[in-house]
Amino acid sequence: MTDILTVVDTLCKTPRVGWLQRGVTDAETVCAHSLLVTLLAGEIAARLNTEGVDINMAEVLAVAAVHDLAEAVLGHPGREVRDRLRWEELEEEVFKREFPHLAEFFRWYRYETNTVGRIVAFADKLATLIRACRYSQLGYPTEDLARSLYKKLMAYDDFAHILDYYVSKYCRGLS
Amino acid sequence: MTDILTVVDTLCKTPRVGWLQRGVTDAETVCAHSLLVTLLAGEIAARLNTEGVDINMAEVLAVAAVHDLAEAVLGHPGREVRDRLRWEELEEEVFKREFPHLAEFFRWYRYETNTVGRIVAFADKLATLIRACRYSQLGYPTEDLARSLYKKLMAYDDFAHILDYYVSKYCRGLS
Amino acid sequence: MTDILTVVDTLCKTPRVGWLQRGVTDAETVCAHSLLVTLLAGEIAARLNTEGVDINMAEVLAVAAVHDLAEAVLGHPGREVRDRLRWEELEEEVFKREFPHLAEFFRWYRYETNTVGRIVAFADKLATLIRACRYSQLGYPTEDLARSLYKKLMAYDDFAHILDYYVSKYCRGLS
Amino acid sequence: MTDILTVVDTLCKTPRVGWLQRGVTDAETVCAHSLLVTLLAGEIAARLNTEGVDINMAEVLAVAAVHDLAEAVLGHPGREVRDRLRWEELEEEVFKREFPHLAEFFRWYRYETNTVGRIVAFADKLATLIRACRYSQLGYPTEDLARSLYKKLMAYDDFAHILDYYVSKYCRGLS
Amino acid sequence: MTDILTVVDTLCKTPRVGWLQRGVTDAETVCAHSLLVTLLAGEIAARLNTEGVDINMAEVLAVAAVHDLAEAVLGHPGREVRDRLRWEELEEEVFKREFPHLAEFFRWYRYETNTVGRIVAFADKLATLIRACRYSQLGYPTEDLARSLYKKLMAYDDFAHILDYYVSKYCRGLS
Amino acid sequence: MTDILTVVDTLCKTPRVGWLQRGVTDAETVCAHSLLVTLLAGEIAARLNTEGVDINMAEVLAVAAVHDLAEAVLGHPGREVRDRLRWEELEEEVFKREFPHLAEFFRWYRYETNTVGRIVAFADKLATLIRACRYSQLGYPTEDLARSLYKKLMAYDDFAHILDYYVSKYCRGLS
Repeated sequence: MTDILTVVDTLCKTPRVGWLQRGVTDAETVCAHSLLVTLLAGEIAARLNTEGVDINMAEVLAVAAVHDLAEAVLGHPGREVRDRLRWEELEEEVFKREFPHLAEFFRWYRYETNTVGRIVAFADKLATLIRACRYSQLGYPTEDLARSLYKKLMAYDDFAHILDYYVSKYCRGLS
Repeated sequence: MTDILTVVDTLCKTPRVGWLQRGVTDAETVCAHSLLVTLLAGEIAARLNTEGVDINMAEVLAVAAVHDLAEAVLGHPGREVRDRLRWEELEEEVFKREFPHLAEFFRWYRYETNTVGRIVAFADKLATLIRACRYSQLGYPTEDLARSLYKKLMAYDDFAHILDYYVSKYCRGLS
Repeated sequence: MTDILTVVDTLCKTPRVGWLQRGVTDAETVCAHSLLVTLLAGEIAARLNTEGVDINMAEVLAVAAVHDLAEAVLGHPGREVRDRLRWEELEEEVFKREFPHLAEFFRWYRYETNTVGRIVAFADKLATLIRACRYSQLGYPTEDLARSLYKKLMAYDDFAHILDYYVSKYCRGLS
Repeated sequence: MTDILTVVDTLCKTPRVGWLQRGVTDAETVCAHSLLVTLLAGEIAARLNTEGVDINMAEVLAVAAVHDLAEAVLGHPGREVRDRLRWEELEEEVFKREFPHLAEFFRWYRYETNTVGRIVAFADKLATLIRACRYSQLGYPTEDLARSLYKKLMAYDDFAHILDYYVSKYCRGLS
Repeated sequence: MTDILTVVDTLCKTPRVGWLQRGVTDAETVCAHSLLVTLLAGEIAARLNTEGVDINMAEVLAVAAVHDLAEAVLGHPGREVRDRLRWEELEEEVFKREFPHLAEFFRWYRYETNTVGRIVAFADKLATLIRACRYSQLGYPTEDLARSLYKKLMAYDDFAHILDYYVSKYCRGLS
Repeated sequence: MTDILTVVDTLCKTPRVGWLQRGVTDAETVCAHSLLVTLLAGEIAARLNTEGVDINMAEVLAVAAVHDLAEAVLGHPGREVRDRLRWEELEEEVFKREFPHLAEFFRWYRYETNTVGRIVAFADKLATLIRACRYSQLGYPTEDLARSLYKKLMAYDDFAHILDYYVSKYCRGLS
């Protein structure tokens, strides 16, 4: 198995390049993002459970916690690099080789093969939207990204009320 | 529910005080520690599954990912402060109030009420041991802590072979 | 005596948790706060001396410079932790054990047993208010804290003109 | 033209992923690397000029200073990502689009089309070797990388005496 | 020759004191500034070439890339220190001793002895103006500096249209 | 009076250039150094008091806490800059203008006009020696500086036993 100590240190020292490219000082790292997705996915799962949808909380948290692990090997390159590759296949390969016991969870998320994976994929985009809104309040030019994420999130019809809740909490000026 | 954005930022900006008190520059944060525990617990669960012990991987990862969340509210004070309080009860209170949907997972870990919780409690100490060994290699005086953690970890009889594996990988000079 | 090198490094690497919990990036450390209290207390003492109140400048600076030393041992936990303990007694114990030659100065400040201690206690709160106002100007949600500190500071009747001076300089929108 | 302010901030905040993956705390950024290549290439050019080889100093410095600019757009991903793409073509595209006035300089370096470009390509690898040696002295496991770079650098026959000079200065235990 | 590794690390860890004195958190380092001057001078040279003025691009980039190297030895002190010394002579001495092969380039810039040096001197001030404007947008009190730099830049009559371009892009509220 | 908030932030963000020039990552700031001098001077004063020498503890702490304040205005330039100026007169001027109420304390230290000032001047050098020894243990090349400071400290005959104590505690390999 791989050296998880440097996996952690790489993820917790790698700034997300989209923020850097918008001038953000002290940009969110990949590991901080992963934790935000985990907490967000957990809140969403709790809410859905309250609403009578039966969601396995442990699975939601687990998938969210590991969904970006491949970036410890691949790094966090710009959009243009990802678009040139079948990025998701590359990630999957890394999982199979480095974290075989977690590869199935990755697939749930990446290909949204079940509800758990779908919640995490939604939370992943939503976490980025929330962060973009916070950065915008601090004076950084992240509105473009916020708007484009908002559109993508609206495609998740059944989570519309959840999207509304977080947008009204974190992204006042958006909609 | 609480503001998870500042929960994340607090955890990812709070250095673990034990490292600071041993002079470590750029000390591990609480959120980096949590991720290390998560990956370590996942590796251990995978190994135990291979050995025929049936462990729910999602639960292990989920519990590990959230086990230190209360520190977003409580901070990460020195040993002396924890010893004066029923620290675990205080943590539990915070979970009930701020993360009620995660409180059950916290209890598994803190009171080791089931195998999942026991694995995470073991991984929590082991992650700190591994970090202490790495810091020691970089020239920091962390041997005392490593030795005391090693003793505590030896109490987990059935995980002795797992302890051996990680000690031989990360803590050559220890035993 | 204790290892003052790690005392310094701990204090200068420990962010004040209240700022983290309000999302402040690159939050003020305990040692930066101590220095601010020292300079502020010095300015206040100079002013009082001008006004004919006889203040020992050296004592004011000395007490301010050391008033938070116990946090090198205790860390800087959240409000909730402090409220559960007799925090000031815990601090005093640490002083007696680790910095016995400074324990008397600590008591002047903590129990406001003389004018010097009272000035430092006032400057301690005022330094936090000033910082809150600066953070607010940068876009962080610290108004609640500013307002609550302002109230506490108004209790120092005889320093009202001093409070006015700093509020008009740093906290325009406050009163 | 592109926004050079965020170009700079991205390059000066992007840690080189190879160091992170070897556990280096406070890893060299892309912009610090670029400056090291610039100074190194300048020293080498000065030496070659002394030896009677006629090198245009301005061109060497200019090419070195800009050789990694494309990473402001592409980020600094892991080796595996670069190997899947025609990375150099991707870089060239970015240059043509974002820095057309610098694209020719990039080609000199990337395809080693002239002596200037060859010196910079050599200095690029040498700068990484020197850094690896320094990290190794601080306790990080970078010997593997140092050894593999050393081999690549030995392929530049005519710069062998230069390689010797820097290896004896920075990498005592290597050869 | 001097140790260029610590030259780089010093420049990339030295914050420019003028920003610190205006309260900027995570202030621009000397090496980030140098890179900004380099890119800016390159853009300006490209534009002038388009306009029919014949500028040697390599020389402009080279001079910009090295213009602040002396600060690796001298540090980056406050204005008051520079004004007490013949700062430019001190810089020149450092260049002659530590970077003799670059001393001529330094003189072009410092004494504006030719068009290349003049472009870099202009870009040096313009880079600081642009940064001041960005900091101002984030809430820092840097308008005074922006205004004073703007005045100095207006003295370069023949670059007036270039100044206009960058001011309208980065410093909306200024003129 | 001056803006003490930016005084603090400047001092707590300014790395001491001598460490940078020896390659130290995360170098000690001026404000961390000031705190170390304060604690060290306090320990020395306590010891001298025990030995029957009558030292005013408050004065020792006060002088140490403020002795480097002028660097908020002047910055922390390299040795070469200080040697070209009457640095101490420049510092004194800054004190008179910006911190007139502290100028007398500065003079005690800078010109060692009394025992209090002499203790702080001794502690200032000793703090730098201790830090040099710690950096040396972490792998940085600071022995030259340690040795030169040790010689200067030996000139304080009456503090020889104090020097011995700290050297045996922090600088094993030195004498």
